[in-house]
Amino acid sequence: VKNLTDKPCELCNSQGGAILWQGPLCRVVLAEAGDYPGYCRVILSEHVKEMTDLAPPERIRIMNTVFAAEAALRELARPDKVNLASLGNLVAHLHWHVIPRWREDRHLPGTLWSAPARDGQAPRAPDPAQLAARLKALLA
Amino acid sequence: VKNLTDKPCELCNSQGGAILWQGPLCRVVLAEAGDYPGYCRVILSEHVKEMTDLAPPERIRIMNTVFAAEAALRELARPDKVNLASLGNLVAHLHWHVIPRWREDRHLPGTLWSAPARDGQAPRAPDPAQLAARLKALLA
Repeated sequence: VKNLTDKPCELCNSQGGAILWQGPLCRVVLAEAGDYPGYCRVILSEHVKEMTDLAPPERIRIMNTVFAAEAALRELARPDKVNLASLGNLVAHLHWHVIPRWREDRHLPGTLWSAPARDGQAPRAPDPAQLAARLKALLA
Repeated sequence: VKNLTDKPCELCNSQGGAILWQGPLCRVVLAEAGDYPGYCRVILSEHVKEMTDLAPPERIRIMNTVFAAEAALRELARPDKVNLASLGNLVAHLHWHVIPRWREDRHLPGTLWSAPARDGQAPRAPDPAQLAARLKALLA
């Protein structure tokens, strides 16, 4: 499967993190991101590059999953901000980053892709089991 | 109006770029980003922080505007990838970045917030008038 780089697609070949919720169209996983507990990814099941490659109803279903992850994170971790991004420059297999941000985290006001601003850390970490339960309820 | 920083909100106090399309809920503007011609922002009219602060039908209308911008850019500029992001770490007034990306641009495979990878530039620039016309048709 082709990406912008020549590497095999890691999101076709692995789960991409611990599964919090799984549906037929996409899954929500907890990223392994030590400085950012609660960092979730919403990963499309199929290898599709862009949101506009999907039919409009599928786009909405994906976004509703992203918004459920945002809502669950806000409820359980009360971040100062949430960052949402679909980039896919390294892995052009559609996936959304849902990242809780705090004033005292490593990068604010920068992005996670910016140079670090400080030795920061998140003041709160959502419990993965609670996150999974909230997603299940929100996406039922 | 409060942001994460103490600066006044520039998206309440300015258009944020040349207007390509304007609706009651949001506007689409062309960012002034020399290395990234066609870089659009979808900016909410009201000062709201997160997507989940909006009612579900408004979230969908915003996303449909983001997807219209992506579709128009793909049609007119044929980028290798499109990046979508709602960050708001500097300006917590809901806005989406819609960024056409090319293999030979300044940052790929990094983000626009990453350290530059090369003296890159975009191989194609969409015509702003055509972009505005396409958005008008897609959002009619």
